[in-house]
Amino acid sequence: MNIAFPGERGAFSELAAVEFFGPDNNFIAFNEFNDVFESVASGKCKSGLVPIENSLAGSIHQNYDALLESKCHIIGEIYLQIGHYLIANEKVTPKNIKRIFSHPQALAQCKKFLKTKFPEVETISFSNTALAVKKIKKENLKDSAAIGSMQAAIDFDMKVLASNIQDNKWNTTRFIALERKNHYPARNQSSVKSSIVFSMKNIPGALFKCLAVFALRDIDLHKIESRPVHGRGFKYLFYLDFSGDIRDEAQNNAINHLKELTSFYHFLGSYPTGRQIKPVYKKR
Amino acid sequence: MNIAFPGERGAFSELAAVEFFGPDNNFIAFNEFNDVFESVASGKCKSGLVPIENSLAGSIHQNYDALLESKCHIIGEIYLQIGHYLIANEKVTPKNIKRIFSHPQALAQCKKFLKTKFPEVETISFSNTALAVKKIKKENLKDSAAIGSMQAAIDFDMKVLASNIQDNKWNTTRFIALERKNHYPARNQSSVKSSIVFSMKNIPGALFKCLAVFALRDIDLHKIESRPVHGRGFKYLFYLDFSGDIRDEAQNNAINHLKELTSFYHFLGSYPTGRQIKPVYKKR
Repeated sequence: MNIAFPGERGAFSELAAVEFFGPDNNFIAFNEFNDVFESVASGKCKSGLVPIENSLAGSIHQNYDALLESKCHIIGEIYLQIGHYLIANEKVTPKNIKRIFSHPQALAQCKKFLKTKFPEVETISFSNTALAVKKIKKENLKDSAAIGSMQAAIDFDMKVLASNIQDNKWNTTRFIALERKNHYPARNQSSVKSSIVFSMKNIPGALFKCLAVFALRDIDLHKIESRPVHGRGFKYLFYLDFSGDIRDEAQNNAINHLKELTSFYHFLGSYPTGRQIKPVYKKR
Repeated sequence: MNIAFPGERGAFSELAAVEFFGPDNNFIAFNEFNDVFESVASGKCKSGLVPIENSLAGSIHQNYDALLESKCHIIGEIYLQIGHYLIANEKVTPKNIKRIFSHPQALAQCKKFLKTKFPEVETISFSNTALAVKKIKKENLKDSAAIGSMQAAIDFDMKVLASNIQDNKWNTTRFIALERKNHYPARNQSSVKSSIVFSMKNIPGALFKCLAVFALRDIDLHKIESRPVHGRGFKYLFYLDFSGDIRDEAQNNAINHLKELTSFYHFLGSYPTGRQIKPVYKKR
């Protein structure tokens, strides 16, 4: 099966994709998040996986937008514990380093480390962490390092100068698995979530009434995320994750009730609640 | 009065700051959003102004985080209509252009324009739009252009190759004005807003109950924004904007009621609702 993920080999997205779908698949790297959505929507890839939220940095908003635009469905999720590593070419020592390349989010997550250990060093943004490692390897840069995953260090055969350098040790990214069509979770799943997106009619206390639909039925809300509707001024779309399968009686009634209050409603998927994993690094 | 803003002269933030505070002040540019918060919190600048939300791209999350960390107060807001311009050195024509520099958000807002008119061109991210214009001016780049404001084109005496190139014409950024201490709006203000931040106790239907505090008192909610609490897993802080002055009876009671449900509460400010302006460009 062809599985799309964003970034290069060794990116956290690939580790999460291999854990989620199992290793016996054909994992295809795409440069941009949007390309992953497009490859799944067009059928080029059967499934895909993208990050949607990080415990420190928050939501990845463009992927919320892309979920709606691509009409892809969420078929599952997985939580990956993120560790950042300072990676350099052989023979490079910390005092040689003048520049550090990485994704802006990785740089932000290692801010204190960088400020303390490399106060004079220039940080340079890169579109993803594995590409940053690839760059310093390919150009054999002796005055530079990259922040990336352990897997990237192994894949590109690079030296690790410092491990787990992120400021906050509890650093987890939630990834969602995508397919073109929804498929419901097995009925014996112990824990199921559903995701929807809606915008509200212009009525007083609209958001309160929309949340009441769930609260009055004791349906737990996991997450609410608002995004501006493009070109409509400061009018918002709401992305909501709640407990349960949308085919269940309370959930089904809640959605029918919600539709009385919304001007737009779209179902993103019901899927098993994800597990938290630590990445497993392998020589390959 | 010293007023801090992020970016270079000619940045949208400076235009908004001049409109909000009036031209007879000393406007000081800072590289980073965080430096603006710090200069206000430390008293180096009396006031500051930063963008907080764009109608297309959504919230600027790091500024929500910085609001809380810096303990600055919101004393006002202003909505600025944003137009993007393709800017180059004299004698450069569209067919010379191989690279386009700008802030990632500006590049994203001109995606369709870039795809249609410059499908082969490399786009390069820069920390702000005015700095991108400054770069191509300073290095006298003949194969490059920048996306920036009309004011930046005027300030750096550059050629405008295309005007209002953003994909969506309704493109507005909301800026907030900051001071170290809260000051309440005059009692004769016709329209006042308040901003708070809180996290909820771990009780069933917590968010619903928190919103009920306002809904049951007919207090309009303008915006709700959730951010992860750093280092606490997927636990959230909520930023809420609502109608009215926090000294009013209903608002004051609502906050006392809210505190029964929250584990953390912080007041950000009551301030007059902002007006929408078009930028005024001037030779200077």
